[in-house]
Parts: sequence; structure tokens; C-alpha cells
Amino acid sequence: MLSEMGRAAAADLQTWGDACERQPAMLLQFDGWGNRVDEVVYPGAWRQLGAVAARSGLVGLPYETETAGRAGADARLLQAALCYLFAPSTATYLCPVAMTDGAARVLTDAGGVGQSREVLRHLISRDPGEAWTSGQWMTERQGGSDVGQNAVVAKRDGDRWRLFGQKFFCSNIGCEVALALARPEGAPAGTRGLALFLVPRDGPDGRRNHYRIDRLKDKLGTRAMATGEVTLEGAQAELVGDADRGFAQMTAMLNITRLHNAITAAATMRRALMLATGYAAQREAFGRRLEQHPLHAEVLREMAAEADGALYFTMRECFGGQGYMEDTGLPRLLRDAQVLPIWEGTTSVLALDVLRVLRKHDALDAVGAELERLDAPERDCALELAG
Amino acid sequence: MLSEMGRAAAADLQTWGDACERQPAMLLQFDGWGNRVDEVVYPGAWRQLGAVAARSGLVGLPYETETAGRAGADARLLQAALCYLFAPSTATYLCPVAMTDGAARVLTDAGGVGQSREVLRHLISRDPGEAWTSGQWMTERQGGSDVGQNAVVAKRDGDRWRLFGQKFFCSNIGCEVALALARPEGAPAGTRGLALFLVPRDGPDGRRNHYRIDRLKDKLGTRAMATGEVTLEGAQAELVGDADRGFAQMTAMLNITRLHNAITAAATMRRALMLATGYAAQREAFGRRLEQHPLHAEVLREMAAEADGALYFTMRECFGGQGYMEDTGLPRLLRDAQVLPIWEGTTSVLALDVLRVLRKHDALDAVGAELERLDAPERDCALELAG
Amino acid sequence: MLSEMGRAAAADLQTWGDACERQPAMLLQFDGWGNRVDEVVYPGAWRQLGAVAARSGLVGLPYETETAGRAGADARLLQAALCYLFAPSTATYLCPVAMTDGAARVLTDAGGVGQSREVLRHLISRDPGEAWTSGQWMTERQGGSDVGQNAVVAKRDGDRWRLFGQKFFCSNIGCEVALALARPEGAPAGTRGLALFLVPRDGPDGRRNHYRIDRLKDKLGTRAMATGEVTLEGAQAELVGDADRGFAQMTAMLNITRLHNAITAAATMRRALMLATGYAAQREAFGRRLEQHPLHAEVLREMAAEADGALYFTMRECFGGQGYMEDTGLPRLLRDAQVLPIWEGTTSVLALDVLRVLRKHDALDAVGAELERLDAPERDCALELAG
Amino acid sequence: MLSEMGRAAAADLQTWGDACERQPAMLLQFDGWGNRVDEVVYPGAWRQLGAVAARSGLVGLPYETETAGRAGADARLLQAALCYLFAPSTATYLCPVAMTDGAARVLTDAGGVGQSREVLRHLISRDPGEAWTSGQWMTERQGGSDVGQNAVVAKRDGDRWRLFGQKFFCSNIGCEVALALARPEGAPAGTRGLALFLVPRDGPDGRRNHYRIDRLKDKLGTRAMATGEVTLEGAQAELVGDADRGFAQMTAMLNITRLHNAITAAATMRRALMLATGYAAQREAFGRRLEQHPLHAEVLREMAAEADGALYFTMRECFGGQGYMEDTGLPRLLRDAQVLPIWEGTTSVLALDVLRVLRKHDALDAVGAELERLDAPERDCALELAG
Repeated sequence: MLSEMGRAAAADLQTWGDACERQPAMLLQFDGWGNRVDEVVYPGAWRQLGAVAARSGLVGLPYETETAGRAGADARLLQAALCYLFAPSTATYLCPVAMTDGAARVLTDAGGVGQSREVLRHLISRDPGEAWTSGQWMTERQGGSDVGQNAVVAKRDGDRWRLFGQKFFCSNIGCEVALALARPEGAPAGTRGLALFLVPRDGPDGRRNHYRIDRLKDKLGTRAMATGEVTLEGAQAELVGDADRGFAQMTAMLNITRLHNAITAAATMRRALMLATGYAAQREAFGRRLEQHPLHAEVLREMAAEADGALYFTMRECFGGQGYMEDTGLPRLLRDAQVLPIWEGTTSVLALDVLRVLRKHDALDAVGAELERLDAPERDCALELAG
Repeated sequence: MLSEMGRAAAADLQTWGDACERQPAMLLQFDGWGNRVDEVVYPGAWRQLGAVAARSGLVGLPYETETAGRAGADARLLQAALCYLFAPSTATYLCPVAMTDGAARVLTDAGGVGQSREVLRHLISRDPGEAWTSGQWMTERQGGSDVGQNAVVAKRDGDRWRLFGQKFFCSNIGCEVALALARPEGAPAGTRGLALFLVPRDGPDGRRNHYRIDRLKDKLGTRAMATGEVTLEGAQAELVGDADRGFAQMTAMLNITRLHNAITAAATMRRALMLATGYAAQREAFGRRLEQHPLHAEVLREMAAEADGALYFTMRECFGGQGYMEDTGLPRLLRDAQVLPIWEGTTSVLALDVLRVLRKHDALDAVGAELERLDAPERDCALELAG
Repeated sequence: MLSEMGRAAAADLQTWGDACERQPAMLLQFDGWGNRVDEVVYPGAWRQLGAVAARSGLVGLPYETETAGRAGADARLLQAALCYLFAPSTATYLCPVAMTDGAARVLTDAGGVGQSREVLRHLISRDPGEAWTSGQWMTERQGGSDVGQNAVVAKRDGDRWRLFGQKFFCSNIGCEVALALARPEGAPAGTRGLALFLVPRDGPDGRRNHYRIDRLKDKLGTRAMATGEVTLEGAQAELVGDADRGFAQMTAMLNITRLHNAITAAATMRRALMLATGYAAQREAFGRRLEQHPLHAEVLREMAAEADGALYFTMRECFGGQGYMEDTGLPRLLRDAQVLPIWEGTTSVLALDVLRVLRKHDALDAVGAELERLDAPERDCALELAG
Repeated sequence: MLSEMGRAAAADLQTWGDACERQPAMLLQFDGWGNRVDEVVYPGAWRQLGAVAARSGLVGLPYETETAGRAGADARLLQAALCYLFAPSTATYLCPVAMTDGAARVLTDAGGVGQSREVLRHLISRDPGEAWTSGQWMTERQGGSDVGQNAVVAKRDGDRWRLFGQKFFCSNIGCEVALALARPEGAPAGTRGLALFLVPRDGPDGRRNHYRIDRLKDKLGTRAMATGEVTLEGAQAELVGDADRGFAQMTAMLNITRLHNAITAAATMRRALMLATGYAAQREAFGRRLEQHPLHAEVLREMAAEADGALYFTMRECFGGQGYMEDTGLPRLLRDAQVLPIWEGTTSVLALDVLRVLRKHDALDAVGAELERLDAPERDCALELAG
């Protein structure tokens, strides 16, 4: 299973990922006759990446295990290994995988009823014809990471809800379903008043739900993975779990996506290291191969040891001017890696989050003690990694 | 003069720079009837940037002063200040300025005769209709920074020369003239055998010189500034200075371009800091402005103090997800900054170069003593800057 | 004056027209921070074409003459000659000229008061910094040429009006002002209930008027001249002339634009003929020059005599496969010529319009008699031209 | 079989054809490390169209029948019907089909030996993994249709040949094999001295043959089907048939491709008519549906009866301004149809060719007599069709 994914990563996945980079998704807002359609048009290769992801169970694996009544930890490990192999070749398709995994987690934990149960079935399906991906519509323009400022409102409409307002960073915008934070009318301000809603792209009658995709964002990297800005104009939605637990549910989702994010960072570093090492073993300059120059060998050793923050800086160096050329594939690694430190909140936000958790569990002292036991170099490295 | 440039930087220069980024130069290899033409087609805005550069004397200033018999130091200072204001808005037009300045230096020092004298007049002209820019064709595919491996050969053709071979990184490829390293037939291997030649784009009869532009490079950044790969097929050339001083002359040119590179790095950092500071003064999150958050204020303070290596990492953080969007202009700063550490040789090459110079002048001990006199934090900073 | 325009047509105008074709205008709907701006971004060359048009009085000429109290006929002739020279090189910039001329006609005839007088001054100005162009927002999606079906409504707002609804073909969408057909609340159905309104792009406070540009149309030709779809959301507007004369005023405008259209068609034919003749005089095939082949010479003769309907078909033939290549410039002539038969109504609409006018003036018999007096070949040609 | 193709034409074929139009093939001349590769990169959808063409036997059908010892006429009829259904949706993929059919004809008639036999097997294969397509490299820059002026030379190299020179219109440039006209050293001038050669893209060792693709042509239409300019630099080639029969063999190929060309023209007309009729049945203007307006109904009737020369002119009219918009798909029909009258020689060349054949068979009088027997209107139509 892993070796199969490894072989694919060096063959079809790479081909399809390259094709997606060459032709990013485009937004078709109107058809030829002037009707608003808001269709995200992906290249065929994007669908093929999705088919491999589905068949390999990149999302489904842990849920299948849970359903079978066993602990999910082993399944998560296998999933992580598969994603580690899948990620570097596949034009950030791991982003839809991560968000879909997060959505499946929340829907599972909420004990999905009604529409949720059916949606969950699609999210974890291994059948490419049945598999859906999910988006996560959390932040808004005015507040960004500070979702307590969120202004999207949910209004009752019989036994369902309708959402109104704008969402500003909607990754994987071609998704069949999205989880969205919104504030029910009358709910308090701040994060306490936020609820989580399921927003399907299409209604039961096959017509589009009531939201507009205002534009695709023109991003530095992750260009194959379309991100949109959305205006909700009375979009039909279903409440997920309790109405006052939206923020807590969002945090649960983020824990899943942060996991995938870390896997992607590690996999990208590994890929960059492999490329740099391979180049250094072939390229000759000043009378010997790059890897035989003590200074360069030192760079490679550091690169293998350093955290992802140092990835792109070091990588560029190992290739000289070539690392700057699009057709080597290196610029793409650099561009796409830029997003990792901000996808789950800025580093400041994440650092405060870590402190909050440690305090909550009275764990600060324990961490301090553990650091004391380390040798000085190890401690420096750990502190540096901790930000 | 400086305040005029400052005003332009916030007005026309920015507009033209943006236009150049939107429509990078393209290479027209054939005309409509199948004839090879190899014309680099720039947007009108690129020509307008060039006109401002010429009229402001961005290249010419030091040479005018020298010609007037005075020391060039003050002129270099004024030039640096003008470039510092010009650089961040102008789509890396400072790269042609830097290379032209380097070429003017070498031609001046070589005491230009014949064609060289006429070319020099164009390079330092303040008349946009007369002003030319120069390229520098140094490195080749097989050796890169290790120019001692260079294989381009120069053959005698009466009292002139003809060049044959390939040059792999030809920045500012639309230049009217280039300085190229080549090895005269019979010259020894290594850097000792390299000579410097002047290669005009057009012959005296107005016809193109005998070289082909194989393609424009598809780069991570500096996209408005076209870089090409060139095949010399008997291009007419004129020897500059002594035939065995090519490498020394190249070093002299690099000293000039490194100066401009440092100015660009500093100016880009300043621009990024201004943007980050302005954003932090307006953007509210978690109940107060970004600049009022101690952690963020600390980031801004570090940013103001840190060297350019830290520029893009920090910058990204200050803007959250917005810093990742093309239309904020921040990704362009990031992309273009990537090239600075490699334009004049990789960091390893530069570090060795510094050591070489220090040793040559027996200056290592003096530097060590100076470092000793510094406070510990200052010393750390200086060592870090030193790589 | 004419010779000056002739020289420009072969020099700068051609260069700028080519630049506009290479980089069509783009629509910027949002700025980098998510604010709706709906700005049409043109290449610099488009502005330069506009400057020449203004300075040459392509719009202003007839109105200056009228203002001076003289008959406009001579000025119209000079204007036509200038446009004939200007049109083929200038990337359909004559379309904005034509629409601006039509708007100036209507505003002049309506005896402009208030805002209209000031707008008129801009439309006919020869100062590029002052000159504006106008759009004409007539047709709507549901009715097309059948403007009697128009649904855009005008509501009173104090002494001004506000417009609501959609306009589907808005040529020259970057215009500073547009003339729009709308139906005042309470006005009858059909063309009788239509009024003409002046819609400025910017309000007196410099803020954008209340309309959205939904998209730029992706057209077969005339690609440099941006055409948009517009949603009016309470756009401020000023009534032009009497409220029940909107349709009659539109007809007056169409008479002006049809004139320009005919000039463009004739000029394009002439340009194509020149290219075909020049090619035939140089290109050799089957032992002699193309022009020496009787069959081809016949084609050229017919081409010189035929109406514009035959233009592109014949032209293609004269160049063989080369006429199909973008970089010869011929495909652009073909593409842009496609629009001429529909810009002022389809051929059917125009034919019925001619019959209507002839009937109104009891002139059908006179035309019949005139045709009788012609020789047979002339008559055939006239009838063919008449459709 | 036909109904299956009909269903596909309205479903997958249309989707893939649209995808190919959105992302035309691109030429990758160098890999990331500067090595010349000249790879034509097609979108995945292009390969899928090719797979359907192969599996349906669009090329293979007649040859399978012949191999089975039966007359090919019925197979040709079935093939024509399949192509008629396949053509309008498939982004001019019928062009590779036509050229491959022509190549298969010539190789079959030449009684292929050696490499030819193996190539033929690939050209008519129904297995998408085995199927190849062929190009036809006939014309050159200096002579165009007048191939007697051709200058590409074939030099003996042991028992094989090597070709040198330039070919200017190489449709389907991504082909695995091409048939090329070249003049063996010592052969006479004019068409008599031309021989036909088989030029494989890859050698037996898997390395590219010795020719360069100088560029892809930027065409008015048929944009999904890449056409290139080729420089032969000693490309290995195999003689097909007798060395003095090149021109005759080319004519045999043209007969096949003209057949496909006529099918495409008819199919495109039919598609345009269907679209125009469907639109006229829905669109209301001036109080009734378009089809109920006598003048428009007359246009539709003429359109159904007229030859393909009138196709695009009439079509445009039926749709008013909408026919000019890219996203209706109509402009593509127009653009692609432009090429049909020139693909097999200009109309003049074809007309002379018809006369030549009629004279050769003393058939001019018979044709005259047949025309006499027709009613006047039929005769006019026949003469018009005859050009």
C-alpha cells in the first residue's frame, strides 16, 4: 500500500500535479448566455489526483477503523505515511484532503443526523464517483484570525437556516460542501456566539445554493488549489452540533488540519533535501562535486537537520541560480511552503495557542523540566523549533 | 533632486512598475514571415522607467563627476540615495542600471578606444533617446559560478573577434550591448585564460549580431526583467583591455553590481517594513490594533533591525493570509528578494570571497580585534550578518 | 493635418495598436484588501491612442465648426478622412471615437444644461488630459436589438434619477460617462416609454457611481476594446432631453456611429487590399509572381471592387496559409471586421430600417427608377450592396 | 456504433474538446537544466480524444476491411459517418485523423517494408496505447503550394537517408511519425525530383530524431491542434516507394485529407445550423420568436441550403451580438472553419487541379452536358459550388 503510493508519487501523481500547476482552476461566473453559474473549472488532472486520494483512503482510513470498533491511532499513522508520500508531487491536493478530514472529524463527533450523515458518507468514501471534499469557511475580512469579530449571520427558516454575509478565505472553493462559522440571530458577540453550519453546494433539486463566488484569489503559491471569496445570500444550511459550540468545533477541525500541515511541511523538506542532495552529487564546480566542498556539505547537513522555517532559504542556495528557475520545480516548493506558517493561524497566534494549552493543563513547569534535562545544543534546537 | 525622485516613486514609477509586472517582456523569435528576429518586446512602461533612470543619471552621475576631474565618492553617495528611492517601485529596473554601471566602470578603466568609447557615451547618457543598457554574459551552463570552466571561445577575424558557444544566465537580455567572458583560441584553461569582450546587439549596418536568444527564463521573481539564454554563433566582438585580465575585470564589475544589490536589499526591506507598520497601525484584531499587541510589536521591532535574510519570513507573518495575495504587492517583494543572495554568487561563494580579500590584506586579525571590542549582542549580530 | 495622420498611422499608431492587441484591458473588480473597485485597467498604449484621437479632433472637429457658426459638412468630411487613416492601425479605438461622437451629437441637440454641458465640453476636448469618452448602454439581455422590451427602470430621486437593472453589451466600458436607455417608472411599455439618461462613472465627490461591471466579454475580435456587462444598482443619472424621446435620440446616435462604422469597413478593406497587393507583387509561385497569375490577378481586381462583406473571404485566399497566422496581422483584420455587420443592428434590422426610411419619404419608386437607369453590371452590384 | 458516437459527441467529446480549446498545447524546447527537448505538451483531454478516435477505428476501419480482403467502400462510408459525428465537438482532432489516414494510404500502397510496415501497424491500431498519429511535411517557406520549389535535401547515409532543411507548415506537430517530401541529392528540380520519406520522431534507441521544432504557430483558429515549424538537421528517414514518385504520393494523400476536410466542413455547417435553429426557436424579439420572422426564417432556409463558404457569414447574423462572444462556442466554429479552404491548397489551386483532372480524362464536355440538363437554378447552384 505504501510502496504503491511511493511508485505513484514518482509517476502519475507527478505528471498530474505538474499539469495542475500549468493550468490552475478558473472561475466561470456566467455561462455564454449571461446566466450566473459560478462554476470552478478544474483541469482533468485535478480530478485524477482526487480519485487517487479517495481510493487510497487518505481521508477515509481513520473513520473506517473507528467504525470497525478499533482504536484509530494505527490508522492515523498509516494515513500520515501515505500523505507524506502523496503530498510533494500533488499540487497541494493535500489541502482538500486535510479540510475534508477535519470536516469528517466534526461531523462524526457531532453524531451526524439528517443531511450530515449522508454528507459524511461522501467525505470518507473510497469511490471516486461518490467522494466529496469539504471546505472550511471560518475567517472573515474584518477580523481574520480573530473570528470573534465574525459578522456572518444565520437566520431561522423553518427547521433549517439561511446564512448571510461574506467569507474571505475559502480554500478548496470547488468543494461539494463547506463547514461555515456563523452567528445565529440573537446570539452573543465574540466567539461564544458562533455556531457551525453545513453548507452544501447544490440543493436537493440539483440547483446551486444561494452563495456567490466573487473571485478566485491570485496567490503567491498553492496556485493549483483554488481559493475563493464568497458572498452568502441566504444560503441554505444545517446546524452541526450545539449552537454554542461553533468555536470549539472549529478548534477540533484545526487540530486535524494542523496535523496534515505538519506532514506536508516535513514532506516538502524531504523532497527539497533529496533534490539538493542529488544535485550536489552530480554538479561539479571548482574542481570537484558540490557535495565534496566542505562548506556545501555543511549546508546540506544543516538542511537535513533544520526545521521547515529554514527550508526555502537553504534550498535556494544549494542550487545557485538554477533554484530560481520555474522549470526546475524548486520555485513551486518555495512558493507553496510560504503558506504553511499561516494556514492554521500566524506563528504568533499558534504560539499563544500553545501557551494557552500548556497553562490549561498546568504543564508549563513540566516542559521546563524536560528542557533542563537536555544537552545545551538539543535545548537550543528545541527552543528554536518552539519559536 | 532626491525629493523629486521620492515623489515619482509614489506616483508614476509605481504605476509603470505595476504595468511591467502585469505584462512581462516576451521574446519574438520569428517575424510573421518566418524570419528569425530574436526581438525582446517590452511593455511601454519599461521604456518609461528607463527614461527616468537615464534622465536622473542613475548610471551617469559618478562618471560625469570623474570627467569633471573631481572625486567620485560624493556622486556615488547621491547615486545610492537615488537608487534607494527608485528601486522598490520599479520592477527590478535597477538590475539593468547596476549592470550598465558595472560595464561603464570597466570600459572607463580600460581607457576605451574605438567602439568602446562610443558605447561608453551611450551607457552614461542622460538622454533617453541615446541611453543604452548593458548586459553581462559571464557564467555558462557547465560551470556556473566556477567561470574557470567556461568554454565560450573567441576566434580572431582580422582586427576583430568572433565568439562561439553558449551563455546561460543573461540578465537584461534586451540590452543594446553586452560584456562577455570568452577564451581566446590558444589561451590557457582556468580563469587565467579568460578575456572580456564587448558584444553589440546590432552591427554598424543595423543588422543583428550573430547570436540567438534561445529562450527567456521562466523565473520565480524579477519577472519584469527579462533574462535569456544565448547561443553565440560567430558574434562580432571587440576586446576590452588586456586579453589576460578578463577575470579581474569581471571582479571589478561585480563590485559595482554588489553595491547596487545591497542598496536594493535595503530599500526592499524598508518598503516591506513601511507596509507592515502601516498595516499594523490600522488593522484591529483581538480587541486592539496589531501594533498594540506586545508580541506583534516585538516582531515589528525585530523586523526593523534584522538583516535582509529575515525579510520575507517576517514580512509574511505581519500580514497574515493577506501577505500571500498577489494584489497586495507583497508576494512580488518576496519573489524578487529571493534573487539577491545569488545574483553575485551564492552565499558560500561570497563568504569565501570575503575571506580571500581579508587574507590578502592581512586583515583577519584586525577584524577579530574589532569584534572583541563589541558588546556581546552587537557581536552576535555582526557575526550573524557575516554569515 | 491629413499627411501628419498618415505618417502616424505607419509609425506610432501601429506600434501602440499592436501593443493594445497583445495586452487587452483587464477588469479589476476588487483591490488587494477585498474592496469592490471595478476598475478597467488599460495598457499605456491605449491612453496614447486616445491622446492622438483627442489632439486630432477626431470627435471635436464638427462641433468646433458648428460652434463657430459654420456648416458642419466640411468638418465631417475632414473628420471622415482622418478616421479613415486612423482606423486600421489602432486596435478599434475608433469605436470609442464613434460612440463619443454620437453622444456629443445628442447632448448638443438636447441643448445641454447642467451636468450635460460640462460633460459635452469633455467629450469634444482636444486636450488629452481633459478629454473623455462615452459609452452607449442601449440593449439588454432579454430583447437585444428589440429595445422595446427593455426593462431597466429609472426612479425619481429629488431632481435627479436613479437607474436599476442590467445592460448586456456595453462597449468601451472604461468610459467616463455613458448614455443609457431606461424606462421611467410609470412610462408606457415599448419604445415609446424609453428615455435617455446621462450616467457618469464618478460622482462629484470622486466616488464611483452605483453600478457594477459584472465581467468583460471574451470576444472573437475587437479584443483591445473592452466590452462589459453592467448591473445598475441605483446609479445616479440625469435625463437628456424629453422623457419620451429616448428611442428617437438613440436613432440619432446610431446614425453617427453607423457613419464611423462604414468608414472603418472601407479603411479595413483598403488596408487588406494593400497587404494583399504588396504580397502578390513579391511572392513567387509556379514560376512567376502571384500578381502575374491571371486567376490571382482577377481575385485582386474583384477584391478591389467588392463590398466589405467579401473582404475576409477573399483576403484569406490571397495569402494562402500565411493569412491564417496571428503574427501577420491578417487574422486581426478578419476578426475585427466580423463585428461591423452587427454593431448597429443585424443586417436584417438594418435592411428593414432602410425600407422604413424609404417608405416614410415615399422614396421607394425613386430608388427603383434610379436602378433602372444603371447598366446591368452596375445594377447587380448596387443590388448586391443593398443586401 | 454510430449511436454510441452520437451520444459521446454530446457528452465526453464536447467536454474534452472544450478543455483542449481552453488550454492549447505548448512547446517545451528546453528542460529545467537547459537541455533541448522539443516536447509538445498536450492537455490530458487531447489524449482522451485520441483514445476515442483509435478505439472507434476512425483511421483503421478501411484498412481492416481491405486486410480482410473486402472492398473498402462500405468501410469508407461508415468511417465518414463516424467522423461527421466526431468532428464538431473535438477541437479539430479530425485533422490528425485525416493526416494519419493519408499516411496509412500511402504506406499501404507502397507495400511497406522494414520500418514502414511497423509504423503502419501503429497508425491503424485501435489500441490507444499503441496508436500513433502522422504528420505530413510537404510545403516550405519559399514556395508554399508550389512544392516544385522545395529545397529540403535528402542525403544517403548507408542504407538510410538524412534530411536537411526547413518545413514551414507542420500540422499535428506532436506526431510520432511524419511523411516528408525531400529532394535526393542529384535529383532534378521541380516536382519530378521529389521523393517521399518516413521520418520517425524517436529513434530505435528512444532518442529524439535530428530535427528541431522552431516554434508553434499562433493561429487564428484550430488552436487546440498544434502546428509547428521544423528545421531538419540530419533527421534519419526511410524512403517510401520509388524515389521519383514523391509528388504523386503526396497527391494520393491529399485526396484522403480532402475527403476528411469536406466531412468536417459539412459537419461544422450542420452544427452551426442546429445552434442557429435552436436559438431561433427560443429567442423572442419584436413580439415573436426569431423563427417566426419571415426575413429570419428565410435566412435559416438559405443557411440550410448554402455551401460552407457562406457558413460563418450567415451564422453570425442569426445570433446577433451573441454570436461574437467566445463562451457561446460560435466564434470557435468560425475561426476553425477559416482554415478549410486553404488546408488542401488555396481555392485557386484546387480549381486548377479540378480542371487538370477533367482535361486528363477528356471529361470537360461531359460535365458541360450534365450542366445543360439541369434546371437553371440548380445549374447556378452547381456552378457556384464549383467556384
